[in-house]
Amino acid sequence: MTTLVFGHKAPDTDSTGSPLIWAWYLSEVRGEPAEARLLGEPNTEAAFVAERWGFQAPSVIEDVEPGTPVVVVDTNNPAELPEGINSADIRSIIDHHKLTGGLETKGPIDITIRPLACTATIMHQLMGPKASEMPEGIKGLMLSCILSDTLEFRSPTTTDVDRALAESLASDLDLNIADYATEMFAAKSDVSAFSDAELLRMDSKEYEVDGKKFRVSVLETTAPAQVLDRKEGLVSAMDTVAKEDGVDQVLLFVVDILREEATMLVPNDLTKGVAEKSFDTTVEGDTVVLPGVMSRKKQIIPNLKV
Amino acid sequence: MTTLVFGHKAPDTDSTGSPLIWAWYLSEVRGEPAEARLLGEPNTEAAFVAERWGFQAPSVIEDVEPGTPVVVVDTNNPAELPEGINSADIRSIIDHHKLTGGLETKGPIDITIRPLACTATIMHQLMGPKASEMPEGIKGLMLSCILSDTLEFRSPTTTDVDRALAESLASDLDLNIADYATEMFAAKSDVSAFSDAELLRMDSKEYEVDGKKFRVSVLETTAPAQVLDRKEGLVSAMDTVAKEDGVDQVLLFVVDILREEATMLVPNDLTKGVAEKSFDTTVEGDTVVLPGVMSRKKQIIPNLKV
Repeated sequence: MTTLVFGHKAPDTDSTGSPLIWAWYLSEVRGEPAEARLLGEPNTEAAFVAERWGFQAPSVIEDVEPGTPVVVVDTNNPAELPEGINSADIRSIIDHHKLTGGLETKGPIDITIRPLACTATIMHQLMGPKASEMPEGIKGLMLSCILSDTLEFRSPTTTDVDRALAESLASDLDLNIADYATEMFAAKSDVSAFSDAELLRMDSKEYEVDGKKFRVSVLETTAPAQVLDRKEGLVSAMDTVAKEDGVDQVLLFVVDILREEATMLVPNDLTKGVAEKSFDTTVEGDTVVLPGVMSRKKQIIPNLKV
Repeated sequence: MTTLVFGHKAPDTDSTGSPLIWAWYLSEVRGEPAEARLLGEPNTEAAFVAERWGFQAPSVIEDVEPGTPVVVVDTNNPAELPEGINSADIRSIIDHHKLTGGLETKGPIDITIRPLACTATIMHQLMGPKASEMPEGIKGLMLSCILSDTLEFRSPTTTDVDRALAESLASDLDLNIADYATEMFAAKSDVSAFSDAELLRMDSKEYEVDGKKFRVSVLETTAPAQVLDRKEGLVSAMDTVAKEDGVDQVLLFVVDILREEATMLVPNDLTKGVAEKSFDTTVEGDTVVLPGVMSRKKQIIPNLKV
């Protein structure tokens, strides 16, 4: 039976590339039939990366049949996985997020969580000497995952391990990291095709803070104006999305990759309170700039207060 | 701040030896101050093993202060850990049990779960080339953990990796595995010092099956008569322990290590039903022999039905 490898419901480059990398490793190196899947449409960067390295974007699935062998990557949070995940046959989990505590397995399985910047780096470690068998396309995906999750080493989640691996892969591929990252970020920054609601959901995760539920949305871009010019539409879509998704408020952070800062939308008293209490700032107007803030995991979520 | 390394609340050899092994590795190899702790009195085998290899049994703690750096080994189940575990600063988890789903961490940490027979084997893998620095005492603990959890390779949880490591360690230590395992099992089988209630709690874990809560107790011994001769007292202690621990029923399996079978106590209709439905057997009288059953993880828990 073919093992399905997938990440979370808002597929960015790591959650699209890592399933392709691990499906290659399982099938080609370990001889266990495996295929990558997505739990949602890939973002524009992920779509660019897949095509750039000669892969079709994996097909999107809604749920998994009970008993299906699966490998879960880049998340361990059941809220970011198909409804039927705990009835699937979870074979292994490879992730770099905090342990969330809702996933269960029927027996002991391989679980590897590491505080590294991206899932693909952990996969490289797990492959050991077999990593040398990676074809060019898989190396390209791996490099892309690292550059995407570290925002070209700018994010505080970056570790020496991620950076050294990226540099070694780029050298193997004879690729200039700065040039390639610019191409990737340009792809990510082109959000013209998305509706306001789609933008709010694209790279977003739900969190509960002091009894309030938030959808914390982060848009990483080298062209923040393209997003901020749509402020009015985004603010009105916030209400719709919050209602539809059963949360109290959508929080939107537009991360300027090059200036290394985030702009948070502050359309009402709740978001104003969150911004001031969480980031030790004073809000005037309906946006606030948070210097240095780039990482949801390291800088936004741990500080959120209501 | 010293990191505390501990296993679960019913310390057997793996849950006593592994914290000592990892505290050695953290302190001596990685230069991070760490000490082993226990969450309960070690069983007789674990106490024998610690003394045999020159260690004092780690001191027993009841709870952990908020913010204490801790490493959790040989479990990921909050029910088997101190009440305050989710307020501690969990630095890493090393385990070989199914993912239970109640533990949370504040950020991404090192989590390594592998389907191997014992935690100590995973630690050996994590040490990599540094494992060659293990002094004799640490090697002895590691060998003991493997022999204990695999019942000298008889348990179906045994993997080739565990066996090869045990054989290599025994060779380094110039130790005959069969002789040493006999000493260990004799220590474990001497349960004369324990009350009936203590015996029922010694190596036991709580599970819920179809709405019924069970404390599933396993006593591994080379002298099953020593336990079964106390049947009357054990059966009456079952009621007391069940009430005190808030479960519906204690299930006691006396595993005969040498005959490779378990004797289950069947004092009432509930346990009779569980025995017959779970193990495809017919019960006559107040005990039932289950041939080949040695592992709670692989053979008892996955089959439990009410």
